[in-house]
Amino acid sequence: MKIGLLGHGVVGGGVTAVIDAGASESVRNLEVTNILVKDQSEVTDGRMSTNADDVLNADIDVVAECMGGLEPAHSFVKRALEAGHSAVTSNKKMLANYFEELMETAEKNHAVLLYEATAGGGIPWMANLRQIRRIDRILSFRGIFNGTTNYILYHMDLEDRDFDEMLKEAQDLGYAERDPSDDIDGFDVRYKVQISCASAFDQIVSPDDIPAFGIRFISAKDIAWAKSRGRTAKLIGRAAMNEKGLQAYVMPVFLNNSDYLSRIPSNLNGIESVSVTLGPAGFIGQGAGSLPTAHAVVQDLISISEGIEEHRHFEKSAVANGEVNGVYYIRTACPEAFTDITDEVICEGTLITRKTGLNAVLEKIAQCGDEKLFIAEVAE
Amino acid sequence: MKIGLLGHGVVGGGVTAVIDAGASESVRNLEVTNILVKDQSEVTDGRMSTNADDVLNADIDVVAECMGGLEPAHSFVKRALEAGHSAVTSNKKMLANYFEELMETAEKNHAVLLYEATAGGGIPWMANLRQIRRIDRILSFRGIFNGTTNYILYHMDLEDRDFDEMLKEAQDLGYAERDPSDDIDGFDVRYKVQISCASAFDQIVSPDDIPAFGIRFISAKDIAWAKSRGRTAKLIGRAAMNEKGLQAYVMPVFLNNSDYLSRIPSNLNGIESVSVTLGPAGFIGQGAGSLPTAHAVVQDLISISEGIEEHRHFEKSAVANGEVNGVYYIRTACPEAFTDITDEVICEGTLITRKTGLNAVLEKIAQCGDEKLFIAEVAE
Repeated sequence: MKIGLLGHGVVGGGVTAVIDAGASESVRNLEVTNILVKDQSEVTDGRMSTNADDVLNADIDVVAECMGGLEPAHSFVKRALEAGHSAVTSNKKMLANYFEELMETAEKNHAVLLYEATAGGGIPWMANLRQIRRIDRILSFRGIFNGTTNYILYHMDLEDRDFDEMLKEAQDLGYAERDPSDDIDGFDVRYKVQISCASAFDQIVSPDDIPAFGIRFISAKDIAWAKSRGRTAKLIGRAAMNEKGLQAYVMPVFLNNSDYLSRIPSNLNGIESVSVTLGPAGFIGQGAGSLPTAHAVVQDLISISEGIEEHRHFEKSAVANGEVNGVYYIRTACPEAFTDITDEVICEGTLITRKTGLNAVLEKIAQCGDEKLFIAEVAE
Repeated sequence: MKIGLLGHGVVGGGVTAVIDAGASESVRNLEVTNILVKDQSEVTDGRMSTNADDVLNADIDVVAECMGGLEPAHSFVKRALEAGHSAVTSNKKMLANYFEELMETAEKNHAVLLYEATAGGGIPWMANLRQIRRIDRILSFRGIFNGTTNYILYHMDLEDRDFDEMLKEAQDLGYAERDPSDDIDGFDVRYKVQISCASAFDQIVSPDDIPAFGIRFISAKDIAWAKSRGRTAKLIGRAAMNEKGLQAYVMPVFLNNSDYLSRIPSNLNGIESVSVTLGPAGFIGQGAGSLPTAHAVVQDLISISEGIEEHRHFEKSAVANGEVNGVYYIRTACPEAFTDITDEVICEGTLITRKTGLNAVLEKIAQCGDEKLFIAEVAE
């Protein structure tokens, strides 16, 4: 199967490396014949070009998009699908924003669009959801979907270090971007939760509909409190589908140390689904990195080469969150906004709520307008 | 696809329940048409018979064996394969003992024998090994493969209780057999490690070749020591395949509490593979129970109905273990046998070795002849 590869950075380079190495029969059935690179300095072999037409108009069977960014990645994938080529993408931001359009385009053109690498990196999350759904309805999922923030939180906890210092270290190591907002403000996890809602429940939601809090304002003090209660801070994305509709949000959670997700170290990811007959099913692995992410892309390519079919009917859905209740840790300049739901005051400006509906808490946060407020769920 | 079901106990009953419920299109393609039950009192519908011929000679496509025990389970599966029927089994003891013969019989008759439920219960361990191997060589695996002993160890740790009391509780709850030897002496894990070695490495070993230690002689004292060092006792099966051959053994391990496998609670299982491009990949879930195990059996049946092919070439292999080194905690009536490898004496008869080759330790254990010796690996 001839593959046109769009983008040859960390992930795209890994895809070429895995396929060119040809370590298995399934991989040897694949061939990267054309590669779109960013500029002339990247051209190192005859397959490479800086002109997208050289890839998209070539004699290829499938397109693998590993460029990142919204455009031109979106237009290129759409164009490939319209030409009847199946496609694979590792680009969660693009997919989250154009999920419905691209899936419809694929269906209309009898093509398949797969996206294992967009959530959980190398973790076979999409493949396992697909497999579990051969039998079960998925009831819910929760997980650590972002390696950068897990790296930061892990080392803050382990070494009692503060956020700014750890962010800088993550940036120096190349784990975090110079503009770290997508990671530390929870947007990256939100994209992954949105994509996972489609895979798990066939529900398409707008990313903006999913409440998302990040770890930008977490401090060593917050971690110290969590520690003193036998807890560990993790940034968690979760969703559930039930008779009350779709529940989905992203928030730091002070997990009990007895919860295995609290022990997911360094930049690893860990996700758990719950389904009717199987119950809980946890999946742990590398959430990023060249070879693990490339592994996920190549898995999708093999699935396409083996003739995988996907005929799914998606529904548009609003996020209800009416069923979400929790105990929340809130540090804010305006604690008075939360007086009527406060159960315990930790210190000036830091409080624990009694069990409260998430929507009511969100309303109070919007009203108080404290842009540096830090909130974390205190797991039961 | 018409299924002849052999055995209608906890697992077989679950299989009928899942398939009869028909919650998905894939499941509705399956039909249990004939069921072998143990005695007349179990006959509750027209599909059931106490005569195996009524199932094996019926107009069926596939056989699902959920009887347990060596015979007649083995003969029935063999007979089904010889008749050209593909088969599924949940019977690890039978499969471990007849793996090579049954795989050859399947191959010869263009049939497939699948066995997802034999290791890790509901965990999609075999399916994920199969998928990872589309790209990667598996380097190693390790895991908690036995829910009964995990239940016992979990509650010993949580509630500072002693082994005998917890074993009795597990028996009363139906988690442990009246004769608990397979579970608590590590034989059950050994079967699962052996089957996993075939799935991961294409290596067939005799179960007796895999050194196996259980938790029969663990005491509250041992757990207390582990706890005092920030560790948790788990019964671990592990294996690795490298240029020095196959390494495989079963032993209690005092895991660091930072290791997520140390947090696998109650009767859950957790297994991790390591492979070339994907790196570590962890899988957690229900290791037993009617519906989760039935889920695994039905997954295999769906795979067969979708035309899965398996053409694997197995090699017979001896277990080398020459590469296995560790620090071991040993409690014994004859500590003098271990003097030259002792690093620290905890108390009379309880010692920690310095880093030592497993084979050398096994030799000393055989020489000292203490049948009540307790050994655990102290993880790095």
